[in-house]
Amino acid sequence: MYSGAQISLYPMADDFIGIILGALRALDPYRDRLRIETDDLSTLIVGPPENLYPAMRDLLVTAAGAGTHCVLSACISRGCPGEPDDPACTPSTRVGAHGPLGERIQDACSLVASAPTTGLQVAAQFSHYPLGSAHHMDEIYGCIEFLKASGVFGRAKNFCTRLAGDAGPVFATLEQAFLRFGAPEGHVAIDLTVSANSPTRS
Amino acid sequence: MYSGAQISLYPMADDFIGIILGALRALDPYRDRLRIETDDLSTLIVGPPENLYPAMRDLLVTAAGAGTHCVLSACISRGCPGEPDDPACTPSTRVGAHGPLGERIQDACSLVASAPTTGLQVAAQFSHYPLGSAHHMDEIYGCIEFLKASGVFGRAKNFCTRLAGDAGPVFATLEQAFLRFGAPEGHVAIDLTVSANSPTRS
Repeated sequence: MYSGAQISLYPMADDFIGIILGALRALDPYRDRLRIETDDLSTLIVGPPENLYPAMRDLLVTAAGAGTHCVLSACISRGCPGEPDDPACTPSTRVGAHGPLGERIQDACSLVASAPTTGLQVAAQFSHYPLGSAHHMDEIYGCIEFLKASGVFGRAKNFCTRLAGDAGPVFATLEQAFLRFGAPEGHVAIDLTVSANSPTRS
Repeated sequence: MYSGAQISLYPMADDFIGIILGALRALDPYRDRLRIETDDLSTLIVGPPENLYPAMRDLLVTAAGAGTHCVLSACISRGCPGEPDDPACTPSTRVGAHGPLGERIQDACSLVASAPTTGLQVAAQFSHYPLGSAHHMDEIYGCIEFLKASGVFGRAKNFCTRLAGDAGPVFATLEQAFLRFGAPEGHVAIDLTVSANSPTRS
């Protein structure tokens, strides 16, 4: 298994460089579990799939802490057959569609309900791509059923689903969508946008 | 067929609202061919797949024209089985994997070579998801072969491919990747990031 994300942080402010460099420090506690490399377009984080979402959450919460409108955009992937297996990415628990859909939805909801809150309200939208399976829409529809029960469901949009709420349960919901749906050890990708402090009301 | 994109524009400047509202005017010439709706997270454009990339190109070129560091992020989709067929999305030519891979690569390269230039240098990275097919990696590898011959290939990155060059051929390359690879009338999605005026050298 190989898992990781390309993440980008967009502070809508003249001081975007200072805000980005300051926020990257929020990733320091994850450096023993994640490989982290930054270039001009994104920061790559590679490691166990269950560490990716807390790291992204902390990055955005730190960047947006002073009230600047910030967006985190990420391409998150697990099990891509084009990437080498990496023992550093081994998940701590089983990943993917193990067991009946109903049980997975229930377990995912329990974990979201116990997620810590951050005090930062965010709006998010994401697309969930379970690749290489003839039944990819079944897993997508199952995942949507979970999202509707997650407590942070916003609405369906064309090509994606909107979530809104505290960054804690929102990122926990994204994590559960990523970990519990799609073929076990299969290729699953998520295209994610999370916005904080937007001056536009939804 | 249903095709469209959720696009977001991130000007890294205190005046991000003015820059975004000004740039949205670049979409006006497309309003007879594209349905356009904006909310707090993104602008939805829906219409024939061959109109999506010129519209995104013009939006970014306009936003970045004054030298501000701007990023366009988009989730682009065609043929999603969860969306209703829409006659307004009917492509002007055949879409997807028609004919041998070698011919498709050659035709795609010819179209990129004749793309108009814009004067704006950009760096881009994108992930290409041909969904619902057991052979999705074959189409991805074929697409990568085209990208390497496109003239704007940068390098492979984890989970995505980097392009760089004038916005004209870069968006033309993205369009060809979207139109000519993946199952005909199948579900293909692209997760795209395009950056202009970055202060960071690659």
